[in-house]
Amino acid sequence: MKGITLLLVAVVILAGIVAFTAPASLHADDSAAAIFVTKIPPGYRDWRLISVAHEEGNLNSFAAVLGNNVAIRAYREGKLPFPDGAIIAALHYGHVPSEENNKVFGRSQSFVAGPPTNIQFMIKDSTKYATTGGWGFAHFKDGKPGDETFMKTCFPCHNQAKARDLVFTRYAP
Amino acid sequence: MKGITLLLVAVVILAGIVAFTAPASLHADDSAAAIFVTKIPPGYRDWRLISVAHEEGNLNSFAAVLGNNVAIRAYREGKLPFPDGAIIAALHYGHVPSEENNKVFGRSQSFVAGPPTNIQFMIKDSTKYATTGGWGFAHFKDGKPGDETFMKTCFPCHNQAKARDLVFTRYAP
Repeated sequence: MKGITLLLVAVVILAGIVAFTAPASLHADDSAAAIFVTKIPPGYRDWRLISVAHEEGNLNSFAAVLGNNVAIRAYREGKLPFPDGAIIAALHYGHVPSEENNKVFGRSQSFVAGPPTNIQFMIKDSTKYATTGGWGFAHFKDGKPGDETFMKTCFPCHNQAKARDLVFTRYAP
Repeated sequence: MKGITLLLVAVVILAGIVAFTAPASLHADDSAAAIFVTKIPPGYRDWRLISVAHEEGNLNSFAAVLGNNVAIRAYREGKLPFPDGAIIAALHYGHVPSEENNKVFGRSQSFVAGPPTNIQFMIKDSTKYATTGGWGFAHFKDGKPGDETFMKTCFPCHNQAKARDLVFTRYAP
């Protein structure tokens, strides 16, 4: 019993030290490491559809937005904020006319996904990404993560969608 | 042994009768019943992404194209024609501007999936749908299948994509 008590005391002290030092060390370290995600979540291409999107202008992008199981469940249940573990993936492609489809239709009206341009992720972890609304942001072009300057633009923009937990994309039924 | 032999003979005769009468009865029946699909394949909203598409003009549609496991496997392996059992789903939505996104971007550039307009399916069964290239076509608006006049337009149009087994949509990596 005495041994267990001592062990418990030690654990409590240790937990105190960790709790006390962890935020300090987070701030001391490169905060980018905590905020930005640099590893592509495995299996994302098999995730279920949230919705589709198109941006005109410089982006000229076609997006398929997918979610892992946690994200899809939260969307379908209308649960906000998203629970920890939710991951949303935006697969971006060029928005290109389809000559082969237009030939069949007999007029220029068809646009399809062109070459992939980038993949972006939002990963919910309210502890790890506390300073950016609980979301870790990721951007990959040709498999390589975006640089820090670019990645710092994610949160301020998404933060304008506070009412929907920083997520722009709505679920398409 | 004698019993089994007699049974086998009976099965062979029966099979011959079925093989001989089946095509005849198919032609005698309403062929529309064989060509057009009138039941929504269950679970399609959970299928994996093939690609996205947009049609301008009268359609003004946004499509998410999904595939069941057989279809996705065939796409990824580049297998043509699609094997029996493959089902491709086109979830169509209105192509509508997103005022809430445009506000954040500070300009009109963002389009999202509006209200669902219809769901279309192509179901591969080279026997059942032999007269329409092995594909059964389906169209549902508010859960109701398209009428025969409308459904008869599917095959002649898709038949122009013969080189890709009547399927327009290419796989987005």
